[in-house]
Amino acid sequence: MANKTVVAVVMGSDSDLPVMESAIEVLADFGIAFETKVLSAHRSPEDTHRFASGAEERGLKVIIAGAGGAAHLAGVIASATTLPVIGVPMPTDRAGGIDSLLSTLQMPGGVPVATMGLGKSGARNAALLAVQILALSEKKLNTAFKEFKDAMRDGVREANEKVQKRLKGDGSDG
Amino acid sequence: MANKTVVAVVMGSDSDLPVMESAIEVLADFGIAFETKVLSAHRSPEDTHRFASGAEERGLKVIIAGAGGAAHLAGVIASATTLPVIGVPMPTDRAGGIDSLLSTLQMPGGVPVATMGLGKSGARNAALLAVQILALSEKKLNTAFKEFKDAMRDGVREANEKVQKRLKGDGSDG
Amino acid sequence: MANKTVVAVVMGSDSDLPVMESAIEVLADFGIAFETKVLSAHRSPEDTHRFASGAEERGLKVIIAGAGGAAHLAGVIASATTLPVIGVPMPTDRAGGIDSLLSTLQMPGGVPVATMGLGKSGARNAALLAVQILALSEKKLNTAFKEFKDAMRDGVREANEKVQKRLKGDGSDG
Amino acid sequence: MANKTVVAVVMGSDSDLPVMESAIEVLADFGIAFETKVLSAHRSPEDTHRFASGAEERGLKVIIAGAGGAAHLAGVIASATTLPVIGVPMPTDRAGGIDSLLSTLQMPGGVPVATMGLGKSGARNAALLAVQILALSEKKLNTAFKEFKDAMRDGVREANEKVQKRLKGDGSDG
Amino acid sequence: MANKTVVAVVMGSDSDLPVMESAIEVLADFGIAFETKVLSAHRSPEDTHRFASGAEERGLKVIIAGAGGAAHLAGVIASATTLPVIGVPMPTDRAGGIDSLLSTLQMPGGVPVATMGLGKSGARNAALLAVQILALSEKKLNTAFKEFKDAMRDGVREANEKVQKRLKGDGSDG
Amino acid sequence: MANKTVVAVVMGSDSDLPVMESAIEVLADFGIAFETKVLSAHRSPEDTHRFASGAEERGLKVIIAGAGGAAHLAGVIASATTLPVIGVPMPTDRAGGIDSLLSTLQMPGGVPVATMGLGKSGARNAALLAVQILALSEKKLNTAFKEFKDAMRDGVREANEKVQKRLKGDGSDG
Amino acid sequence: MANKTVVAVVMGSDSDLPVMESAIEVLADFGIAFETKVLSAHRSPEDTHRFASGAEERGLKVIIAGAGGAAHLAGVIASATTLPVIGVPMPTDRAGGIDSLLSTLQMPGGVPVATMGLGKSGARNAALLAVQILALSEKKLNTAFKEFKDAMRDGVREANEKVQKRLKGDGSDG
Amino acid sequence: MANKTVVAVVMGSDSDLPVMESAIEVLADFGIAFETKVLSAHRSPEDTHRFASGAEERGLKVIIAGAGGAAHLAGVIASATTLPVIGVPMPTDRAGGIDSLLSTLQMPGGVPVATMGLGKSGARNAALLAVQILALSEKKLNTAFKEFKDAMRDGVREANEKVQKRLKGDGSDG
Repeated sequence: MANKTVVAVVMGSDSDLPVMESAIEVLADFGIAFETKVLSAHRSPEDTHRFASGAEERGLKVIIAGAGGAAHLAGVIASATTLPVIGVPMPTDRAGGIDSLLSTLQMPGGVPVATMGLGKSGARNAALLAVQILALSEKKLNTAFKEFKDAMRDGVREANEKVQKRLKGDGSDG
Repeated sequence: MANKTVVAVVMGSDSDLPVMESAIEVLADFGIAFETKVLSAHRSPEDTHRFASGAEERGLKVIIAGAGGAAHLAGVIASATTLPVIGVPMPTDRAGGIDSLLSTLQMPGGVPVATMGLGKSGARNAALLAVQILALSEKKLNTAFKEFKDAMRDGVREANEKVQKRLKGDGSDG
Repeated sequence: MANKTVVAVVMGSDSDLPVMESAIEVLADFGIAFETKVLSAHRSPEDTHRFASGAEERGLKVIIAGAGGAAHLAGVIASATTLPVIGVPMPTDRAGGIDSLLSTLQMPGGVPVATMGLGKSGARNAALLAVQILALSEKKLNTAFKEFKDAMRDGVREANEKVQKRLKGDGSDG
Repeated sequence: MANKTVVAVVMGSDSDLPVMESAIEVLADFGIAFETKVLSAHRSPEDTHRFASGAEERGLKVIIAGAGGAAHLAGVIASATTLPVIGVPMPTDRAGGIDSLLSTLQMPGGVPVATMGLGKSGARNAALLAVQILALSEKKLNTAFKEFKDAMRDGVREANEKVQKRLKGDGSDG
Repeated sequence: MANKTVVAVVMGSDSDLPVMESAIEVLADFGIAFETKVLSAHRSPEDTHRFASGAEERGLKVIIAGAGGAAHLAGVIASATTLPVIGVPMPTDRAGGIDSLLSTLQMPGGVPVATMGLGKSGARNAALLAVQILALSEKKLNTAFKEFKDAMRDGVREANEKVQKRLKGDGSDG
Repeated sequence: MANKTVVAVVMGSDSDLPVMESAIEVLADFGIAFETKVLSAHRSPEDTHRFASGAEERGLKVIIAGAGGAAHLAGVIASATTLPVIGVPMPTDRAGGIDSLLSTLQMPGGVPVATMGLGKSGARNAALLAVQILALSEKKLNTAFKEFKDAMRDGVREANEKVQKRLKGDGSDG
Repeated sequence: MANKTVVAVVMGSDSDLPVMESAIEVLADFGIAFETKVLSAHRSPEDTHRFASGAEERGLKVIIAGAGGAAHLAGVIASATTLPVIGVPMPTDRAGGIDSLLSTLQMPGGVPVATMGLGKSGARNAALLAVQILALSEKKLNTAFKEFKDAMRDGVREANEKVQKRLKGDGSDG
Repeated sequence: MANKTVVAVVMGSDSDLPVMESAIEVLADFGIAFETKVLSAHRSPEDTHRFASGAEERGLKVIIAGAGGAAHLAGVIASATTLPVIGVPMPTDRAGGIDSLLSTLQMPGGVPVATMGLGKSGARNAALLAVQILALSEKKLNTAFKEFKDAMRDGVREANEKVQKRLKGDGSDG
């Protein structure tokens, strides 16, 4: 991958990696050059600010940030850059992630964070949204995303056939 | 405004207009050409599908969709286009909008909706995210967004001065 | 089962099958001919629309749809058919299924979805509601449903006896 | 209206009438003969049981029940009849109606209640679901429901035009 | 235990027994004669009504009812008796028991259910409340309850000592 | 009212009086001698403890306690008496009273609080539960409660007739 | 007030002033020198960071921060200072403030925010906690706080007397 | 540790110890002398009151209290002392700890409890807040806390490097 890094995948702790890998896989599949960072809005605020305020100049186009609990990471990054910031709320053991979700989503007017659903699906969708954004000015990605969408539909059709087979003889004629 | 329409602001009902006007104002302020549509995922599904599947070809770049309750509009549009879709959950009278929020946000892996906070702030942020996305390939918008961010900071400073004045004589030396 | 297929059991993913099998078993028990489909409101929207808009003509009477998260499947089907649509919210790992529940239930005026409780009990009840609806014009089903209701009552009585036995000697004279 | 009463609209208190009137209007519009009853699962349990257990014999086909708080009315009626029962959770002042919603929806396996969304939209949809159920064996209602669905779509189109007009000159070319 | 049965412990299903045994144990410990019943508000409504309306005449003083989901059992029993009814909301797998809790608690004015906390602690407390009620007219129980309260306090003191010991050498002088 | 005070209605603040008056009215209606107290678990803890620990000796039989927010009043009283304590969670402006509700209800095993629903209905039911408890050993109250229950049923029947009249001519034959 | 400023009352917007004035009044009553600031974690992040990281050197001892929605202000300040930070979650129109509450409270291990209840009571308590902290090393404040606590208890006693008077003649002997 | 005990770590039950040990470890690490107590607001109210009202005289400076469910412990202690009280809401099996959280946090104006997040992180932060408070008048602790903050930042940097290494070869250049 010789092309320029355009997406950053940032997470509040290395314990978020198992979730954020769902984003990383998608970016790799689409051949998008990305970097990953562990940065904490609360434990390394200056590093985080330095990263965010320098991101555009370093050529980044989109920042994906995953954090849990009082999840300030995406918002703090959004406060220091004009790049689109995509937030992934981490599931949390106890409050089920509703804390992460509301802390990421309910941003004040003026500082948007594009919030995804909780957990792995959300991380995966964060990367796909990054692809959609980059595809606006990159024809090849646009074509790739369309193929991805077709493949997804075909996947549903295959699942349908699989279910038909499994149920044959159960009284279903489906 | 002679330039090409690049953003659509779609809403499930004309009763959503008072909220979605917060998006419309931002787009107008940034000089972005946009269209508005009332389309219902449930009451006019074919019109909605036709709109969404033809959006890219018609030159749109970003779709903002606001809906309430079992808010399927953003998701249904996202299912039929490869453009980035930004969802604005409408506040609802009874469940406080948590129904709109979860129905917009919790999309399955594969079909992202960039979800904003509830209501007017969310609508405003939806337009600002659209600006951020378009600014990636339009230098002039990028500059404008930076000015907007500076003005926002200055607004906080002015609010600070206003509060200082109001509290003078109250025992605060603020 | 030579009779005509009158109920469809649709699910958003084959991973929903373990829950939706509770519906399938009930339909089989009552001798109702049904079909099962995997269809996704978001990943195969056109297949879903085609299925829903053609359902009545194909002779279906009732459609049962199970989906999770931003669960749009039942609503999207209801938007494209005049048949009664019964929604089964899937439990989800993180938000406990409240997302599925509200996304299925809070439909706008004009497009009802008959929503069941979360998970297996809900799926079972979806099939029983289908039986109740079909029984309105099919005497035999009505009789069968009454027998089912009696058997259910007898089941409670047996459970009562079982508990009495288990507690004998515990100080209960129950 | 000389035809036979086939739907009952039951409510736990006469204070529920302003919400349940949304159901009543729809039934009247479709020319369906209905009766209304105030019955309380808790304050007049025997009247409620008598009503429910005799409903089928009296020729009723569908029962719509609205109640709030620990909303047991729909479930209690469903326990004593084999007819389809549609539940409308009443909004409540304090817990926002989530109590009504869960008390109506989360029925045990074996006793379905077709639950609608909260409040007036839910009441309206309850009546529409009744129409859909009755339309399965009454051609005229089926046609009427299709016309209703078309009119609803046209209503969205008109709302769209209204919004276009209101925004003309605002910078939208929508 | 030759004395007259004064408390009934009723549950909606025999699967509730592991929770309700916490109530049973307390009643046995206090030497209170009780009976246990499996009765379902929805699946055996007539048995339930018969039980409740005859309870007082049979000499019962207090009824404890545990149920989950759309937990109508306590309310339905309360509707048919003038005896104090104590409700125990069962934890549920998915909505965490908040459905059981609100369905039991939010009774309309006129029909109280003395609601306990979720699960085993709630079941235990239901029995203790029954003891407190019966102790109002039975001196011996009153004395026993006071001893129980003292023993509970002593239990806390012992737990305190246990913790002191465990932490000795950890830097605590506690 | 020459008889001995047997019920105390305690509230955390005089601002709770409008809600707690619903309890007071019921007690007055049934001719039960009661006292009212403003006592705060947090702001007058020693007065509260003195009240609770001396309650039984002063002849009280039942204590009703209403409080809001982190509603500790009922629990704190229950910790210092062996009398039955009935808790009324006050509605709160912001969290809708769910804070009051859970703080009152989720008591640890060993210290029951008989929790009522939120607000005025809950306060009314608290008094009715007190009546039910006292009626166990006072025949006259038992008779009065039965009359109350009959009157309540008759009230529903009258509401039913009122609704019939209001809807006459609306297409309902109700 | 000639003494040194030791407390800062910071708020995210001047619209938060009506709530935060409850803190200001308490500080003024106790004669504590304070300053007030409008600072936004998202709209003026650098000003906020500068304020927080210089706070200790400027002689501040405690920082009170109020913010709403995705309320990051207290957490962002806590990340940049070693002073105790007290967070006041602002009530919000739509999600009832639960978003503010969880965003302020659920901080990661390592960066505490002393979170108060929602709104005016919370703001008032924030100032009182600041007083308690300062009182640890200032005898005069400790005495003042004790007097405050006694006055609060006396206030409850007066409220009690007020209620007694109001109810005299209502059948209460309270 | 020869120095005077200044912090108490109190918990409602010895089953809370695994959570509260996160507080104990921090205090030990900072060399702060502390004591631990098992005290129950409900099961040993008099012991609790005695502890709280005597705490200041015994030389304590800060009290940390952890409890779950209807978590009254921190509030009850705060009602009887003028020392700062820090509350740690225990996670609970069923309602996910939201009961503990609201019962600890939503204190009435006048009696602050500095509430931490749920569970172990909250317990850890409680101890760190105690350190911050004590550091206001103890230079050595202030220095130690600054070192702790630096170490925490370094920990994030190390986690970042760890993640970089793990992802090397995965297509990331991060």
